[in-house]
Amino acid sequence: MIADILCEKIKAKKNPCIVGLDPEWHKMPECYKSFSPAEGIYRWACDIIDTASPTVPAVKPQMAFYEVFGHSGVEVFEKIVKYAHKKGLLVIDDSKRNDIGNTSRAYAFAHLSKDGPINADFLTISPFLGEDSMEPFFECALENDKGLFILVKTSNPDSKNIQDAVRKDGKKVCVSLSEYVYRRGTEYIKHSGYSSIGAVVGATFPKTAQELRRIMKNNFFLVPGYGAQGGTADSIVHCFNPDGLGALISSSREITYKHLIADNFDGSKNAYLEIVEKQTKKMQSEVYSALNRNFQNMEY
Amino acid sequence: MIADILCEKIKAKKNPCIVGLDPEWHKMPECYKSFSPAEGIYRWACDIIDTASPTVPAVKPQMAFYEVFGHSGVEVFEKIVKYAHKKGLLVIDDSKRNDIGNTSRAYAFAHLSKDGPINADFLTISPFLGEDSMEPFFECALENDKGLFILVKTSNPDSKNIQDAVRKDGKKVCVSLSEYVYRRGTEYIKHSGYSSIGAVVGATFPKTAQELRRIMKNNFFLVPGYGAQGGTADSIVHCFNPDGLGALISSSREITYKHLIADNFDGSKNAYLEIVEKQTKKMQSEVYSALNRNFQNMEY
Repeated sequence: MIADILCEKIKAKKNPCIVGLDPEWHKMPECYKSFSPAEGIYRWACDIIDTASPTVPAVKPQMAFYEVFGHSGVEVFEKIVKYAHKKGLLVIDDSKRNDIGNTSRAYAFAHLSKDGPINADFLTISPFLGEDSMEPFFECALENDKGLFILVKTSNPDSKNIQDAVRKDGKKVCVSLSEYVYRRGTEYIKHSGYSSIGAVVGATFPKTAQELRRIMKNNFFLVPGYGAQGGTADSIVHCFNPDGLGALISSSREITYKHLIADNFDGSKNAYLEIVEKQTKKMQSEVYSALNRNFQNMEY
Repeated sequence: MIADILCEKIKAKKNPCIVGLDPEWHKMPECYKSFSPAEGIYRWACDIIDTASPTVPAVKPQMAFYEVFGHSGVEVFEKIVKYAHKKGLLVIDDSKRNDIGNTSRAYAFAHLSKDGPINADFLTISPFLGEDSMEPFFECALENDKGLFILVKTSNPDSKNIQDAVRKDGKKVCVSLSEYVYRRGTEYIKHSGYSSIGAVVGATFPKTAQELRRIMKNNFFLVPGYGAQGGTADSIVHCFNPDGLGALISSSREITYKHLIADNFDGSKNAYLEIVEKQTKKMQSEVYSALNRNFQNMEY
């Protein structure tokens, strides 16, 4: 199962942190701007993958930032998945897709199928349309040995509008969703004890994260926005199990756009990738230390 | 405002029905299969647009079915929007996107901006992440005079899981969302009295649709699945206001895949487009008659 491979990679690299690949043209360092946008963002992503691949288990490209460039951007997305795979990284396709029936099936094929154009390892999906809307994604994941991260509790202030609404059975939407992820994910567990079905859980509500962690015992949390959306090493510890597994911490801006606030940055590729490398290792070290401070039974 | 143009087109064609363009390669008539998939689905969509454009105010391509073909499919999507515009049709980009902050902004630019690669007239978006997550779409719509359809109550059985959950204030999620659409949409009203901000409301729960209609007085409902997802002419009447406006009824399968169950279909383009034309006009006639039976004050 893909969750087993994820666990192995986290242990081998002693790192549950991943890099978000969110290309924004106006934030790109000068060295990529002599190319066409499509070529520029492809080179940018490959350079980051080369730099980060010894340190991280996976990358997380966010589709919105590729769609900005139209179909050429989507082509870059497809190429980045291939390149990351070649470099031994898993790819979390952060597209937050969903629809119903046939349409969900089409999205699942496009993003997750081994015969599809993207062939990512994990896909983020939205649960707003209900359980039946997600079934085609589950089926595709099982057939192709892929994984899902279902939006459960996001990091933004207004996530409460819907995610904290209380259902007729007295359960909050995010709690009910967590139970669903746990229950529905059991079929996707093999060697590691972890399921290939996980949840997106923001780090900005640590108490809720703890509550959801207790429900989703063997599901991975995808925790976005380390450094930028308010998550710190201590606030994200509660997203993990005591074995140091069960969460993936993602950072985009703090790694790939740190050069914008760096002193004496000269716009060169070398200087840029030095910052990327430093930030990637800094994040690994901060999170790994925090985990070791909090857990005695770390598996890595 | 784009809502005004939509109202004018509906009145001019005496038709609030639109055609969904959801290419599925294995369902395509033989006449398109001699081309590459990208070329085949482009020709298929253009032929349907040519055939339906005298009858319908808009088309609704569903992005999932284009993503199946990877970036080449997305390129076809972009070309279809241009072609539909050339033929005087509005385009509802049914992509159900959402995310937070910058990422929502990127999606909004990609799908709705006049300077973006798609440049659709309306975009469907998901509200699961909360009100702040939708703001960048509202901003982009206002700047570019475009419109939105926010998922409020979908047609599938499990839509109840989240959309009927009750919030702390005692309101169902779909009711609270309707109030938001109504309130937030007031800024997007000009000549017609209708807002460019609308809602996706399924026809399978007629009582709920009536309730939401009363809340969203001047917002358009996008009602999918006429004929296929259980909607009939009489069940969708409650989605309209007495002026015969306020709803768009969409059908895909009943128009574009009716040949699959037609007697003596020979696979030719002529025979196919005859069915498309017949089904498009049948839908117009059914819905227009039902509206006239129910409302005395139709504006068209």
